[in-house]
This record gives sequence, C-alpha cells and structure tokens, in this order.
Amino acid sequence: MNSRLFMQLEFLKEIDKIKDIFRKTKLFNGSRYENDAEHAWHISIMALILAEYANDKVDLPKVIKMLLIHDIVEIDAGDVVVYDIENRERIRKEEIKAANRIFSLLPKDQSKEYLLLWQEFEERASNEAKFAAALDRIEPILQNYYTNGETWKEFNVSQEKVLTTNYHIQEGSEILWVYVEKIIKETFAQSNIGL
Amino acid sequence: MNSRLFMQLEFLKEIDKIKDIFRKTKLFNGSRYENDAEHAWHISIMALILAEYANDKVDLPKVIKMLLIHDIVEIDAGDVVVYDIENRERIRKEEIKAANRIFSLLPKDQSKEYLLLWQEFEERASNEAKFAAALDRIEPILQNYYTNGETWKEFNVSQEKVLTTNYHIQEGSEILWVYVEKIIKETFAQSNIGL
Repeated sequence: MNSRLFMQLEFLKEIDKIKDIFRKTKLFNGSRYENDAEHAWHISIMALILAEYANDKVDLPKVIKMLLIHDIVEIDAGDVVVYDIENRERIRKEEIKAANRIFSLLPKDQSKEYLLLWQEFEERASNEAKFAAALDRIEPILQNYYTNGETWKEFNVSQEKVLTTNYHIQEGSEILWVYVEKIIKETFAQSNIGL
Repeated sequence: MNSRLFMQLEFLKEIDKIKDIFRKTKLFNGSRYENDAEHAWHISIMALILAEYANDKVDLPKVIKMLLIHDIVEIDAGDVVVYDIENRERIRKEEIKAANRIFSLLPKDQSKEYLLLWQEFEERASNEAKFAAALDRIEPILQNYYTNGETWKEFNVSQEKVLTTNYHIQEGSEILWVYVEKIIKETFAQSNIGL
C-alpha cells in the first residue's frame, strides 16, 4: 500500500475514538448522554436543512466539513461543558496540541487544510465558521428544550448564563437566534430550574 | 414560529432516533456495536479524506449529503446485516415506506430533494452514489480488519461472500477495492474464521 493511503487510514482509525467522548447533553429523548460523533452527524444535517437561515450566503460544504471535524481535538482534551468558562480556557492549550497531533496523522496537504479549517471554526473567523458555531450551540439547546432543561439543571446554569454564552448564535443566524432565545426562556419558565 | 421552520425542527428531532439503531459491526477498537449516526459521521469524513480515489470526478458535497442521510430509513426498518440477502429484500419495502414517512416531515421542496437523493444512493444511479456506496461498505470491512473479523465470525460469513457482496466497491473506487480485497483475504487468513 502506498504511504499516503496508509496515513489517511491511520487518521480514519484514530478518529474512531470520538465515539467514546461523551458530551454534557443528552439525546433528544433524554435516554443517555450523546457522544461527539453523534453530535457532529446531527449538526451536519442541521446545516443542510437549516442553511437558508444563515445571515450571509455561506459555502455550505465548507460549513459541513468544519462541523464533521470540529470536535476531533476532544479525543485528547476531553469535553468540557460550555458554561464552565474557567476550564474551557484551561483546556484551550490542550486542544491546540491535540489538533496538531491528530491532523498531523494525515498527509501534509490534508493535515494543513484541516488544521486551518479547525482554527477558522474556533475563531469564528468567517461567515461559514459563524454559522457552523451557531449550529454547534443550537443542538444542545434543542436537547435541553426537549428534556425540560435537564442538563442545565444538572450543571446549575442560569437562564442569564445560557443566553449570554450562546448569544453568538445571532452572528451566524439572526432568525434562528430569535427562535432559540424564545425556547430558552420557555424552558426556564416551565421547568423547575431554581434560579 | 413559521410552519416551515417548525417542520424542519420536527424532522431534526425525529432523526435523533438513529442514535439508537445499532449496526452489526463494532467500533474499530471492538468495544461495542456502532450505531447509525456514528457510522454516517465516519463515512462522511472518509468521503472527505479519500475523495481522490473515486474512479470518476464526483460532486463531493453531494456524496456527503447522501452519506449523512442514507440510513435514516432504518429508524422504521431496522438494520439488517448486508450478508443476509433474504431479509435485505424483505425489508426493502419497509425502507421505501420509511423514506416516504420520514422525509415527508420536511417542507415539500426539501422532502422531494432528500427522497430522490436517497433513491439515487440506493440504486447506485450516479458516480456520487457509487462512491458513497463504496464508502458505506469499506467502513465495516475496516472494522472487521481491526477486530480480526469478529462480526464476520459472528454471522458465519465466508470470505467468498464478503468478496462478492462488496464487489461493487470497485464501481466507486478501483484503487480502494484493490486495498480492501487484500485486507479481506488477510483477515480471513489470520483469524480463525472456520471456513
């Protein structure tokens, strides 16, 4: 086998590990926590179905590319809930190290492409990244909406914190932010989140 | 909320169920069976990384679109191992019914688009569908390669059957078929699959 294909297959084997990285949100039916592979799949389909609500015209294949690979760094760095600002900052360095290690398994041209794409997503440095980042945040909000704010209760998060932490959704889609803001407030009003 | 967005969100909620549809192959580390969402995520990334090996120039975003949605019908019809030809034919009608039910949750334009896309994939009716179908088959072969043919043993499948059932991989990628044929034979030679 040529070494290029060998490297590509090693990468594809390595990323299998994100199926064992569990997030801090549950499936829509609340039965168990979701893992990173399931999450990436779901938000990629969200990108397809909800593309029309992006603020700006976006290169949709690029959005999906970003979404498919955005959590690969968690193989090394783990998943930290978005509301834990302190630890999010702490693991930032670990994530950069992880991105370098994991994408370097690929041949040089692909390694470079995906590392840059991941950085663009992290920095919300383009319309594509802004829309992708919005979808990344909308899925767990929908999951909390359908499970009466279950993991917001678990992590003792206030409505205020949910609203401010996810406010950047409007950078990607003002239309979806209007809806999301509404269901966040509804979830807090209807559930017993004690705040 | 407008009814278009409402329909789209209902669809996005419904497809969450494929995270509970388990396949007949295990993760690359052999720890447990893989579910349909994880599988769709993995082969979508395979499409990105291995695109250069497609026989013909393909519209890659279309390939990925197909792969993301191809197993949604299993929410109703369940997963049947590819080597169980009899039951695969039996569930064919259930899958068509499922595709109609599930894609109909979407607004009409999207419903039609995704139903046609699913049919195109199922019939391997384009270069995109052929390449997508190849990737759909390559992932479980890699999983068996890395787990010493574990689920081939479990379903008592012969080397001959693995080779003939997956032969259409070469319609999508002759280069990948050469590699895949080699690892199938290697797996049978090295494991204790009693045939």
